[in-house]
Amino acid sequence: VIGVDWGTTSFRAYRLRGREVLDRLDLPLGILAVAEGRFERALQDAMGPWLADGERRILLSGMIGSRQGWVEAPYLPCPAATADLARALIPVPFAAAETLLVPGLSAADQDSVPEVMRGEEVQIMGTVDPSGGTTTVCLPGSHSKWVRVAGGRVEGFSTHMTGEAFAALRGHTILGRLMQPDAPPDPDAFRRGVVRSGDPGGLLHHLFGVRTLGLFAQLGEAAAASYLSGLLIGHEVRAAAPLQPASPVLLIGAGALCELYACAIGQCGGSARLAEADAAAQGLALIGERAAWTSPDC
Amino acid sequence: VIGVDWGTTSFRAYRLRGREVLDRLDLPLGILAVAEGRFERALQDAMGPWLADGERRILLSGMIGSRQGWVEAPYLPCPAATADLARALIPVPFAAAETLLVPGLSAADQDSVPEVMRGEEVQIMGTVDPSGGTTTVCLPGSHSKWVRVAGGRVEGFSTHMTGEAFAALRGHTILGRLMQPDAPPDPDAFRRGVVRSGDPGGLLHHLFGVRTLGLFAQLGEAAAASYLSGLLIGHEVRAAAPLQPASPVLLIGAGALCELYACAIGQCGGSARLAEADAAAQGLALIGERAAWTSPDC
Repeated sequence: VIGVDWGTTSFRAYRLRGREVLDRLDLPLGILAVAEGRFERALQDAMGPWLADGERRILLSGMIGSRQGWVEAPYLPCPAATADLARALIPVPFAAAETLLVPGLSAADQDSVPEVMRGEEVQIMGTVDPSGGTTTVCLPGSHSKWVRVAGGRVEGFSTHMTGEAFAALRGHTILGRLMQPDAPPDPDAFRRGVVRSGDPGGLLHHLFGVRTLGLFAQLGEAAAASYLSGLLIGHEVRAAAPLQPASPVLLIGAGALCELYACAIGQCGGSARLAEADAAAQGLALIGERAAWTSPDC
Repeated sequence: VIGVDWGTTSFRAYRLRGREVLDRLDLPLGILAVAEGRFERALQDAMGPWLADGERRILLSGMIGSRQGWVEAPYLPCPAATADLARALIPVPFAAAETLLVPGLSAADQDSVPEVMRGEEVQIMGTVDPSGGTTTVCLPGSHSKWVRVAGGRVEGFSTHMTGEAFAALRGHTILGRLMQPDAPPDPDAFRRGVVRSGDPGGLLHHLFGVRTLGLFAQLGEAAAASYLSGLLIGHEVRAAAPLQPASPVLLIGAGALCELYACAIGQCGGSARLAEADAAAQGLALIGERAAWTSPDC
């Protein structure tokens, strides 16, 4: 089986034998980079060698199943486990191989505002223990997800627009003018931002402090972006979930960002552990094992 | 006396006789629009007719006293009243008239992050009753100010980057793609956003709801910008000051924006009243009366 985590800006393919990753391919071929929606052609080009080598089954996940993607897959409502996702796969018309699509998940937060994810559900299934107890999982990013998992099932989740808000505030407000471009991360400034996020006054007030601390030479231009990052991630972490040292948050994602979240979670009274790599590949393998393929295995 | 409220994007001049406004001029001549810092030339051109008519004293306020302006005026620390501002005026080298500059105010919020304003202090002095009790004043805008005033003195204040955050989020995140450009304000959607701001989960989480409500057809493209505005102003109002119906917040600023703030303050358990117009002109007149001019009155 070929598993593809096909997102807005990335295309990560895994050639799988059971749960073993035989080969992998990481291309800058996110759905925004595919001209005129020619997804079949793009998949054919990218997977040509593996298909020529006999692969006949492809499992897709991520934003490729969104309205802007190839085939729109309705969200599967929570609670949902690996088996539920495997039963809800959507066929995709692709001539060169039997191709199925993992639907995203939907949920309602406690005030019935809808919640959605696409792609993260596969990473979660590839990481959590199906026989495990209640765990909080966090997938940091442009749209960070905080997920309640119990017994291998996603019970519910909430999204925080932290990464995208950071980029917009840094790139398109007065705050960016006080920041040295391409400054290396400043861990002390990050921690200072996380501390500040616990003060009264709210995020919109704390943002202005990035400017005034700079104005009064209490925050250098090389440190300001890390401070802003700590401020935003601190606000997210404090609002997202109850934190306890004895119940570590399971972090899934890129190493450097997960390290920042682990730091912030620790500062806010919790603890964190980092998931092993290849969460998406493992999740695609587990769902692929349970899929009702009609084609013969290669 | 000529009073000029000279901001980043606006130039508002008042020809004053005592507290009476004899004439006024509103030009798109903010400090960002003055090429190469030729402020003397710009003032000469704009005020030529009034100077030719005998005016010999000019009082400036606003961002013209910032590092990006004509002469940088050190912030006057709070608490400060009209007389304190009048004693702290900064002379500006202008050949055609004796010209003085009102300094901005600085403060420390409760956690000793610095706070600053330039221009708003004049509007406040032009509005509040010098013999009045403790009042909360709010000046909505890109950088909204919430000000504690007692006995005509500014005791302290906090800034919320609400307007600028709104513009960055609408213009430079995925949220803007779901918004109909130039849709008229939608009061119901605004109120819905204010209600949402009182839910748990935090602002960064509530932002994502703008997207998902749109995705599930629970918020129309014509209503989404007003909902986002209600969300942000609601978060500001709830965090900025304790609100009580019996202690109305005094709102200073443009009518439409002040009406939105009055609505949000009411929804959040407070009450508000709108200041009379010409706050800047009245403040410049009051400070000008107390200034130690050396030139003869015209």
